[in-house]
Amino acid sequence: MDDTLPPIFPRTFRPAIGECRWDGVAEHAYKEDGSAPFRSITRQTLFGDPRLACELRYFEIAPGGYSTLERHAHVHAVVILRGHGMCLVGQAVCPVRSQDLISIPPMAWHQFRAAVDAPLGFLCMVDHARDRPQLPSEDELESLRRDPVIASFLSS
Amino acid sequence: MDDTLPPIFPRTFRPAIGECRWDGVAEHAYKEDGSAPFRSITRQTLFGDPRLACELRYFEIAPGGYSTLERHAHVHAVVILRGHGMCLVGQAVCPVRSQDLISIPPMAWHQFRAAVDAPLGFLCMVDHARDRPQLPSEDELESLRRDPVIASFLSS
Repeated sequence: MDDTLPPIFPRTFRPAIGECRWDGVAEHAYKEDGSAPFRSITRQTLFGDPRLACELRYFEIAPGGYSTLERHAHVHAVVILRGHGMCLVGQAVCPVRSQDLISIPPMAWHQFRAAVDAPLGFLCMVDHARDRPQLPSEDELESLRRDPVIASFLSS
Repeated sequence: MDDTLPPIFPRTFRPAIGECRWDGVAEHAYKEDGSAPFRSITRQTLFGDPRLACELRYFEIAPGGYSTLERHAHVHAVVILRGHGMCLVGQAVCPVRSQDLISIPPMAWHQFRAAVDAPLGFLCMVDHARDRPQLPSEDELESLRRDPVIASFLSS
């Protein structure tokens, strides 16, 4: 049995147990090791209820960690819950902190990076039915790095 | 033009401006006055993007206020963001506070009540396509009030 699957029908009440941990919600690795570049992230599926058309996940990046630089046709709706860091979406790099909202449009390259001295935790709403993320080719990475702000973000 | 509609495509970055208020997100009344019983609630649609199958709304109930007691076939996925209070879901009454998760199953009577000394603010994820809420009949209310815990909750 795949223990990464959330319970089909979540319990009615699931209390928070400590900051950004929940009773009855398993904490998982962000992705399978070696499947894509990333550092120091965990993933918790807060709502994976098949009676809803979307899922709500919580990701937490430890200080100095980052999510995979990727793009896909589906949209992400993000609410920062904890800490602060930086975020690349398309050609824009922006500082983000608790409660900020980020909308990631289709096929925009995006990556989240926690500050060196703080975690970055965020909710991400996403359709159940969605395409797989794409990783940048060497040419695409080189093209992104031509922008000095993006180059600095990617090497931070 | 109906200013209760969110922008079709939200801006990429929308920073928080104060606690549970956001740049570019309008604050609205919870429902139309007189359409159903409620007290002291505001509603902000954080993500109403039609490219996602769900919406993410933020509701805030002022101290002593409450949401409408209602039920519907669609499911609600709730994350408490601020304050504390009590919540009825089906036959269960439970205290809720920041970061707690609540899943409201189909056709369960439900109501949120803020504490007298604190607001109760929460995110609610819901399908774009959904049925309209139903209000309890006098008979249904009487049946709910037969449970002393629910009676006490409803009159608090």
